[in-house]
Amino acid sequence: MKTAFETGAPESEISHSWPEFLVRARVLIDQKLDQLVPAEDAEPVRVHQAIRWSLLGGGKRFRPTLALATGETLGAPCAQLLATGCAFEMIHTYSLIHDDLPSMDNDQMRRGRATCHVRFDEATAILAGDALQAMAFETIAADDSLGTATRVLLLGELARAAGTPHGMVAGQALDLAAESGRVTEVELPQIHRLKTGALIVAAARSGAVIAGAVASDLKAISEYGAHLGLLFQITDDLLDVTATASDLGKTPGKDAQAQKATYPAIYGVEAARDLALQVHRDAVSALRSIDRPTALLTAIADFILARNA
Amino acid sequence: MKTAFETGAPESEISHSWPEFLVRARVLIDQKLDQLVPAEDAEPVRVHQAIRWSLLGGGKRFRPTLALATGETLGAPCAQLLATGCAFEMIHTYSLIHDDLPSMDNDQMRRGRATCHVRFDEATAILAGDALQAMAFETIAADDSLGTATRVLLLGELARAAGTPHGMVAGQALDLAAESGRVTEVELPQIHRLKTGALIVAAARSGAVIAGAVASDLKAISEYGAHLGLLFQITDDLLDVTATASDLGKTPGKDAQAQKATYPAIYGVEAARDLALQVHRDAVSALRSIDRPTALLTAIADFILARNA
Repeated sequence: MKTAFETGAPESEISHSWPEFLVRARVLIDQKLDQLVPAEDAEPVRVHQAIRWSLLGGGKRFRPTLALATGETLGAPCAQLLATGCAFEMIHTYSLIHDDLPSMDNDQMRRGRATCHVRFDEATAILAGDALQAMAFETIAADDSLGTATRVLLLGELARAAGTPHGMVAGQALDLAAESGRVTEVELPQIHRLKTGALIVAAARSGAVIAGAVASDLKAISEYGAHLGLLFQITDDLLDVTATASDLGKTPGKDAQAQKATYPAIYGVEAARDLALQVHRDAVSALRSIDRPTALLTAIADFILARNA
Repeated sequence: MKTAFETGAPESEISHSWPEFLVRARVLIDQKLDQLVPAEDAEPVRVHQAIRWSLLGGGKRFRPTLALATGETLGAPCAQLLATGCAFEMIHTYSLIHDDLPSMDNDQMRRGRATCHVRFDEATAILAGDALQAMAFETIAADDSLGTATRVLLLGELARAAGTPHGMVAGQALDLAAESGRVTEVELPQIHRLKTGALIVAAARSGAVIAGAVASDLKAISEYGAHLGLLFQITDDLLDVTATASDLGKTPGKDAQAQKATYPAIYGVEAARDLALQVHRDAVSALRSIDRPTALLTAIADFILARNA
């Protein structure tokens, strides 16, 4: 089955669903995040300002949107999905704050503004990241719209996807080890599967878990999430090569400068684009076994592929 | 009621219980921690080595021992307490790794050996801390000896005690802000209540939660834990003034050098010792309402007071 993106289907076919969904999700997520974090004037003021600077200063909200999309697709009410989605955004934001630190990627600019340690200071940035990680787990634990068995499942999956050896921290460690070294075509997907893929898969799964999905649907969503995570990484790498700083909101060309292992660096830009097309098809194919309308999930895959169009 | 410590009761009165308990707890906790963390040769090797360096390189295991002691006092089996106790040690260890970083307290020595960022590097130390925090939550979420409602309670309390505005990160932020500034007698207990107290109270409560304690016992344990946390901090501050590096396993006199707010700095050594005696009495008094033998919990308070004898 060709997707709307590939066939160039008239925009009207989907415009009443997914763009509205994206806009609505973004508003709801931003509101909920604002509610969940301490006010800027609450002590300790500086850490709370830093948390708000990094968490509420824009961002695509990809992970919570994905949790909302898989959840709503499989029948969960939005009210049960929002807090968990926000928890994923908290983990993602903490990882950006720590990855940007001088001893890590040493980035000055993120989402069009100063990174947390540049705007505040290094100690505050470390603490803001640490606090956001705790807040993510606190948010799910406190969500009494969900049963305790569901919360335990979600907390376990989030923790596993965030840590080591199966999650984000393991991926970041491998990525740092790979810098200035030679990364093979075998190692690269492994690094990204952990560094960005694990959290994206867990976000996709979280919506399905909250919806009480049957095993076959959960498996399909996991595969979709894995392909989507890879697609996201390839298009992110491509954007770093092709976009300008104002498009990107961060310093472009940093990957090449740091001799980071990226898809364009290993395969070349054209082959990386072809790979993105293939991975996009895989993501959409993974949805076939789900016996419900999955247009929203297909549209999200289309949207990510189109970032680099 | 005078405690064994205060009355100079014959050692035999308690020696068959609490010293044996302490030794046994230490062995069990160290074994369990070793099982819970990835092997040193598992990828990413460097982060796992750093985690093991910091987590398994000694340490008093005060928080897990406390969880075991309150839990066993109130009737929970040790097998249900161990994983949760270890989760508290993981959070504590991550906080030490991050607090020791150059942009925080810039410490070179901890528990008699090089700090994590000195032995490895700064990026690895940040990642090891981040991973330990995730692992703490993963450990409780995965503990199927406990019901899901209990796990959700424990995870919520741990997250709240670790984060901001009610926990450890908030305390560390206030502590950093206070350096080189003037801290009042009002602010000092507030800083420590958050920086070290919250996690100690939560560790004490966790044993009671697992034992299914009635509300009045949980309240008594919370008060005991709060006094114990304060006692721990005062004696820690006193040790920094009075002990040698080999006693302490870390650089002594660092607090004064960094113009840290400490009890001896604000009150003087003698008044701080008197305060420790008072707080010890408060901790023991808090146990009176519990209708079970609490000798073990009294002995732990005695033991902490005696650190500075």
